[in-house]
Amino acid sequence: MLPIVATVIGDPCGVGPEVVLKALATGEPRAVSRPLLIGSLAALEKTRAACGIDIALRAVGTLDEARYAQGVVDVLDQFVLDPAQVEFGHASAACGEAVLYWLESAEQLGRAGAVQATIMAPIDSSALRLTGRLKELDDMQPAGTFLLRVSGALRVVPIAEHVLMRDVPATVTTQRVLDLMRLLNDSLRRFGLPEPRLAVAGLNPHAMGPEDREQIAPAVEQARTEGISAVGPISPDAVFRQCIEGRHDAVVSMYHDQGQIAVKTAVFEGACSIFLGLPHVHLSIPHGSAYDIAGRGVAQHASMLAAMLAAAALAGGRGFL
Amino acid sequence: MLPIVATVIGDPCGVGPEVVLKALATGEPRAVSRPLLIGSLAALEKTRAACGIDIALRAVGTLDEARYAQGVVDVLDQFVLDPAQVEFGHASAACGEAVLYWLESAEQLGRAGAVQATIMAPIDSSALRLTGRLKELDDMQPAGTFLLRVSGALRVVPIAEHVLMRDVPATVTTQRVLDLMRLLNDSLRRFGLPEPRLAVAGLNPHAMGPEDREQIAPAVEQARTEGISAVGPISPDAVFRQCIEGRHDAVVSMYHDQGQIAVKTAVFEGACSIFLGLPHVHLSIPHGSAYDIAGRGVAQHASMLAAMLAAAALAGGRGFL
Repeated sequence: MLPIVATVIGDPCGVGPEVVLKALATGEPRAVSRPLLIGSLAALEKTRAACGIDIALRAVGTLDEARYAQGVVDVLDQFVLDPAQVEFGHASAACGEAVLYWLESAEQLGRAGAVQATIMAPIDSSALRLTGRLKELDDMQPAGTFLLRVSGALRVVPIAEHVLMRDVPATVTTQRVLDLMRLLNDSLRRFGLPEPRLAVAGLNPHAMGPEDREQIAPAVEQARTEGISAVGPISPDAVFRQCIEGRHDAVVSMYHDQGQIAVKTAVFEGACSIFLGLPHVHLSIPHGSAYDIAGRGVAQHASMLAAMLAAAALAGGRGFL
Repeated sequence: MLPIVATVIGDPCGVGPEVVLKALATGEPRAVSRPLLIGSLAALEKTRAACGIDIALRAVGTLDEARYAQGVVDVLDQFVLDPAQVEFGHASAACGEAVLYWLESAEQLGRAGAVQATIMAPIDSSALRLTGRLKELDDMQPAGTFLLRVSGALRVVPIAEHVLMRDVPATVTTQRVLDLMRLLNDSLRRFGLPEPRLAVAGLNPHAMGPEDREQIAPAVEQARTEGISAVGPISPDAVFRQCIEGRHDAVVSMYHDQGQIAVKTAVFEGACSIFLGLPHVHLSIPHGSAYDIAGRGVAQHASMLAAMLAAAALAGGRGFL
């Protein structure tokens, strides 16, 4: 059985529904998965009409009703959004609330094992702020997860997200590094890499500082005794290039910008982010909801298509594409 | 008059002399500069013979004797190296000492205005260590200078070099950022950019932390009142990509790895480093002395040639190539 890949359509006022429909219209996701959308049929119909996308949609109330027919997309619609609230290019609290509801549905389905992968189409922090429930997109990270960024052969996951630089050295502990190495190793194995080759970045220039010796090195050593294939700490200005060149499968980084500078400076097609620590594959794509071009049919769907194909491959244990 | 570009031949046991001679043999440096070598004629002859490079060499005792004839390279040779000490692929204290002497000569000529640019060919830290005078290549940085890394359109200079991450936040002061912005602005103007567009990286994720607001922002504001075209603090994970895409001429970074992760992850041809804060242009190239292939004629001279052409352009106020 092909994995069920459920995509939350994103903010209906932005380009989310458009890139989702365009990606599905290629037929490629259906060839490797059973694609499902979570969102509002009415909002999708509005986008389909505005952008002239050739695809059929049908609403389902529960997962059991989905048929996954080629050319007909099943939309799990719980009617939480009044379509009159959808205006292309304008943030609305109603859309923000709907997105949060859909994402919660997706997470529940994933955690329950009812779907094998979930994807988050572009959402907008301004709509989320209007709900009063979230301040930033960053708050969307499910509790206890770590965010693996994938861009070409470069794959990076930090031991913590947004930490002030002055507090970074204290977050670099053997336990935190080791826990993430174990999670990363387990996740990559599930994704289909038989023996993941992990690299761990140092904290200091050339990985020559007290934290590198006293905190990171012991974590790498312990991981090795547990049978994890790992090297490090490696000089932070060298390890990401090494990963791009195929010497590692993924890098554990010590702080947000360490990995993000690498990922966002060396740009590759089809980048996405994967939340580690969930029973299912949960992906998000790096571009925003682009309110300025919403509803015009000009949004590029390459990233979304890549995410759908990647989610299917990872959920099916076929590794990174 | 074309600028005099003096190149220190580097460690004679490595590929330095080979890439220097190959680059000059193309004839391109002579078309835009008056090239001069600083080193040992005997060592160069040994390399020329071993690698089969078609170029004539002549020794000069002082700069006045140099003729800069096309096809005949003037070598400022003060006979500080016994050629019997040169064995390809083997570090020697004698070569380390000679390199240090040549570099000192080059710096003196530059500071005196006798040459307009100097280039440091590859040297090796193992030879330097044998001299007992230096531990690492990093120690070669002239006092009071800042190292601007150039790689494609990406140009980055940090406010400090190797600082432990735990000490980084304290180094981020308004004065230090402002001083470097002024130096960078002055340097780029001398290099031929009429109104350099500077960007300043933040310290913290998304440039949203106390140091970003309290130290970096006031420096950028003050620089602007002085007529410097500057923006910042900009999110560290965005600013380097913006520079690559041409939105800035150079970036001031807050710590070593911040810029080096960007430079060494997104690799471009002909990368080099420029020491800011000297009256002359002083360049070094990023590859090492490659003892393992020295004397075999297989070393690539593209980086050295790019450095020679870049040095001539910058010293002549023609900007970056």
